[in-house]
Amino acid sequence: MVRELTAKGWATRERIVEGAARLLREHGVAAVTLDDIRADTRTSKSQLFHYFPDGKDQLLLAVAGYEADRVLEDQQPYLGRLDSWEAWRRWRDVVVARYEEQGDHCPLGSLLLQVGRTTPGARAIVVGLLRRWQEDLAAGIRALQSGGQLPAGLDVDAHAASLLAGIQGGVTILLATGESVHLRAALDQGIGALRGAAVPGPVAA
Amino acid sequence: MVRELTAKGWATRERIVEGAARLLREHGVAAVTLDDIRADTRTSKSQLFHYFPDGKDQLLLAVAGYEADRVLEDQQPYLGRLDSWEAWRRWRDVVVARYEEQGDHCPLGSLLLQVGRTTPGARAIVVGLLRRWQEDLAAGIRALQSGGQLPAGLDVDAHAASLLAGIQGGVTILLATGESVHLRAALDQGIGALRGAAVPGPVAA
Repeated sequence: MVRELTAKGWATRERIVEGAARLLREHGVAAVTLDDIRADTRTSKSQLFHYFPDGKDQLLLAVAGYEADRVLEDQQPYLGRLDSWEAWRRWRDVVVARYEEQGDHCPLGSLLLQVGRTTPGARAIVVGLLRRWQEDLAAGIRALQSGGQLPAGLDVDAHAASLLAGIQGGVTILLATGESVHLRAALDQGIGALRGAAVPGPVAA
Repeated sequence: MVRELTAKGWATRERIVEGAARLLREHGVAAVTLDDIRADTRTSKSQLFHYFPDGKDQLLLAVAGYEADRVLEDQQPYLGRLDSWEAWRRWRDVVVARYEEQGDHCPLGSLLLQVGRTTPGARAIVVGLLRRWQEDLAAGIRALQSGGQLPAGLDVDAHAASLLAGIQGGVTILLATGESVHLRAALDQGIGALRGAAVPGPVAA
């Protein structure tokens, strides 16, 4: 249950979540206790209970939601404005760099694993993240259509779904193998499929 | 440590692994004990210790290896002979059907989670599965090249890597959402990318 909070209350809650996220990224979910989080964020027991009355899993889910937001924020400003081939190219580079830097550790995945991937709260975060991600990709494809760079008849959702699947799989394989070759191949082929469908422009023809 | 086994010994070990796999699929990794597996496979304690001296995790890893083999076997005979567009189409249908039937439960994933995804044994199984899967896809693309249906200059590894990433991501999303739309989109776009590069045949031109 999330209580009704004042603006100041939300700010305090956000400070706790951000501090917990930093601590969990540094030391791993298994090694960090609620007391560590309290000490690090200078939060009293009663404050922590006020914001997370259901306990540690509720806090971990809040951190997971925060990490899910970061997945998309880390792809900005490009993901939110994929209205030129240049923006797509830059976005691709940012995605590759983000996950190569992250390497074989996924903060969001670890949190969801800890609270149980199949719990309703964890599922809601994953499904919400996938939905928003795909909507941003679809919006970018539609922007290219509006600009006359892609044909109006292109199956936007199929292209966005395939790209998203390729990214998810590429990251999964990167987490397992430490190598980004699959992520790169999926992004390049997904964007290549769009470029292959492009309407020849007056200059590029 | 795997002991040197006779042919009969391997057969007994295989019988235990198969029985354990069936039991774990039915009831889930968390609910099954070593005693359940012993009773179901009519194995004595000393026999179980003989074949899996390192204990339950060693048995679970053996079952994970068996499940990894099944992932590829379930795609046969098509995956091993992707030498025509018709074989690719049938393989695509088999992959979609397999994972739609499996739904939101992944026996291999559950096992690897149980023994710890980052343990060397679990990693070796995942990396080995991905490598074999990609090799089969690459062999299929090369077969189409040999048959003159795809140009010799096609980047085989990039196409195979992108397809594999799309499948992994499509299955990951299916496990999270229960929907196969991403898996279908990734397969169709990956195979579509190959068909788009096809050499026009005397009939199909």
